[in-house]
Amino acid sequence: MASKIVDVHTHVYPPQYVSILKTRSKVPYVRDTVPGQPSRLIILPGEDDPSSESTAKGRPIGPEYYDINKKIKFMNTHGIDISVISLANPWLDFLDRDEAKGLARDVNDAINSMCDAHPGRLFAFGALPLSAPSEVIVEEIHRLPSLKYTRGIIMGTSGLGNGLDDPELDPVYQALEQENLTIFLHPHYGLPKEVFGPRGADYGHVLPLALGFPLETTIAVTRMILSGVFDRFPKLSVLLAHSGGTLPFLAGRLESCILHDAHYSGPEAKVESRRSVWDILKTNILLDAVVYSELGVRAAATASGADRVLFGTDHPFFPPLEGAEGEEEQKWLSVTTNYKAIGDAFGPDKEQAEAVLGGNAIRLLRLTTD
Amino acid sequence: MASKIVDVHTHVYPPQYVSILKTRSKVPYVRDTVPGQPSRLIILPGEDDPSSESTAKGRPIGPEYYDINKKIKFMNTHGIDISVISLANPWLDFLDRDEAKGLARDVNDAINSMCDAHPGRLFAFGALPLSAPSEVIVEEIHRLPSLKYTRGIIMGTSGLGNGLDDPELDPVYQALEQENLTIFLHPHYGLPKEVFGPRGADYGHVLPLALGFPLETTIAVTRMILSGVFDRFPKLSVLLAHSGGTLPFLAGRLESCILHDAHYSGPEAKVESRRSVWDILKTNILLDAVVYSELGVRAAATASGADRVLFGTDHPFFPPLEGAEGEEEQKWLSVTTNYKAIGDAFGPDKEQAEAVLGGNAIRLLRLTTD
Repeated sequence: MASKIVDVHTHVYPPQYVSILKTRSKVPYVRDTVPGQPSRLIILPGEDDPSSESTAKGRPIGPEYYDINKKIKFMNTHGIDISVISLANPWLDFLDRDEAKGLARDVNDAINSMCDAHPGRLFAFGALPLSAPSEVIVEEIHRLPSLKYTRGIIMGTSGLGNGLDDPELDPVYQALEQENLTIFLHPHYGLPKEVFGPRGADYGHVLPLALGFPLETTIAVTRMILSGVFDRFPKLSVLLAHSGGTLPFLAGRLESCILHDAHYSGPEAKVESRRSVWDILKTNILLDAVVYSELGVRAAATASGADRVLFGTDHPFFPPLEGAEGEEEQKWLSVTTNYKAIGDAFGPDKEQAEAVLGGNAIRLLRLTTD
Repeated sequence: MASKIVDVHTHVYPPQYVSILKTRSKVPYVRDTVPGQPSRLIILPGEDDPSSESTAKGRPIGPEYYDINKKIKFMNTHGIDISVISLANPWLDFLDRDEAKGLARDVNDAINSMCDAHPGRLFAFGALPLSAPSEVIVEEIHRLPSLKYTRGIIMGTSGLGNGLDDPELDPVYQALEQENLTIFLHPHYGLPKEVFGPRGADYGHVLPLALGFPLETTIAVTRMILSGVFDRFPKLSVLLAHSGGTLPFLAGRLESCILHDAHYSGPEAKVESRRSVWDILKTNILLDAVVYSELGVRAAATASGADRVLFGTDHPFFPPLEGAEGEEEQKWLSVTTNYKAIGDAFGPDKEQAEAVLGGNAIRLLRLTTD
């Protein structure tokens, strides 16, 4: 029997989440811009520049974002056996403190029900009500294992508002570690617009998506490392989007800068003795393989081990270049690029390629319902 | 005869440059903080927080920064045959428009004279008077080939003040291409402090150095690519510090985001047809091997070709952990880490390792005086 193919990086907005986005007038929101054209989804900070009447704000949103049957068709077209679906950014980050608890339950239940409707094809990462009080977040974490298909949670880089090195997150990390739920750490907030220079907008969405996103992820996980999260919670498991942003490539420099900080900071050096970056990469970090290059997959596999790298697609983002027409039957360039990168990275070693394509996810995320 | 080892990433401040830094009271400057302790060099933006009386501002500066004999001793200790020395950041970026021209000449002449005093051991990257009018910059570029040991120029990411995608830089790129002078692109400005979060200062210099620097380089070279610099100047040669920041790892994502931008930006998509990132990496980009990991060296060699990756040390930064005592005789961990990374990356293929250690630099930068 051929080994299974598992997509760990694939997003969905349940219909009730889309309804909320439609009622909003601030980012994130959905709006109809041009009659006869698809609605547009405006989610990124700064994407809603009020001085611009551009119709290119955000991205077109169609049923591929909320109709789970579209996901199944996409999986069938691309030979994907199992998808671990997750709420797309910005998750529940923007909710008022009072509504977060209820909506988190609703969304997590809705995503779990989607999985239930396609048994064996779908598992899920839940979402946390991070704007609610800490005890509400922890309560939802302890409820998640009761949802048959939920294996972790997806989370952005802001945490409770101060980033992932915030000591106030410790109860959250503790509960996740205790319940053996993986954190899928995903970017959303990018970098401030000014770092891309006065001509940044000339390049459309390229700089924020190609660089801002992975750099955000890299900074976030580095702050977790430096603040000792993985020393305090040595069994915490974190799946990093886009092959870790750039963590595999920068791990050597990071470790070197930590070792040398006493020289620069003198007696005030504050990064205390802690586990090495390489150790954390091989013990606590999982990397998806959404990196669009052979050298990226290789670097990821060297950094975390080929047994800790997991195929993903980023569906429904990066759809076919030819537009929505016939989208369901055609293969997506973004997906075939990542398939090819895995094949090329491992060459004749089919076992490693098969592990990355599915075996690792099944083992590490326990994707069985027995 | 054993092949030669060449260090392409090694900095110096000529004495007249240090004198200027000593007269200044704004970043960049040199000051004496604690009696009996070495002077400190404060160069990075934001490093001079006036609200802090910290003695850990900046870094200690000793003769290793300005005494070329210290460089030669360091080279001897580490088996380095040739160094291509360059002014350290922030170069001449901060000078007034009127003084830039004269000081650029002085510095370039001084660095060339250092090389002349150690024939065969030293070559140089010059520095440009970027705050001067464009014709002054171009004039200095055309003068540089008259300096026997100068093979290129070192440059930060700000260009004339608006970054390296500024069309006003075209005459500069044109003159550099014409004179066959390599740009050594090096970070200095990092990222705004807020991207490292409210606890950023808890980690000393780690986040700005380990992440801010390489991310700055990556953004800068990407802006060059997207604005078509390498289309307009197809023979321009750019050596990227720290193995390209993170460009090798992100090249796949960057190329994918460019291809998909029409979907996101719609009819307003502006990134016009241009050469692929991979093509530019293999044709116009050189990468140093200052990446502190085997996987980083491999990624660099895959991205640009093992014939375009060049050994470097970043001397006199990242000195031995044990302090300045006996520094000259002991090997530096930062250097041995990069040596080992190259050895491990190429394994039994000694020819490739030797090329990266020196052969590539000798060939690409024409390090002979015949």
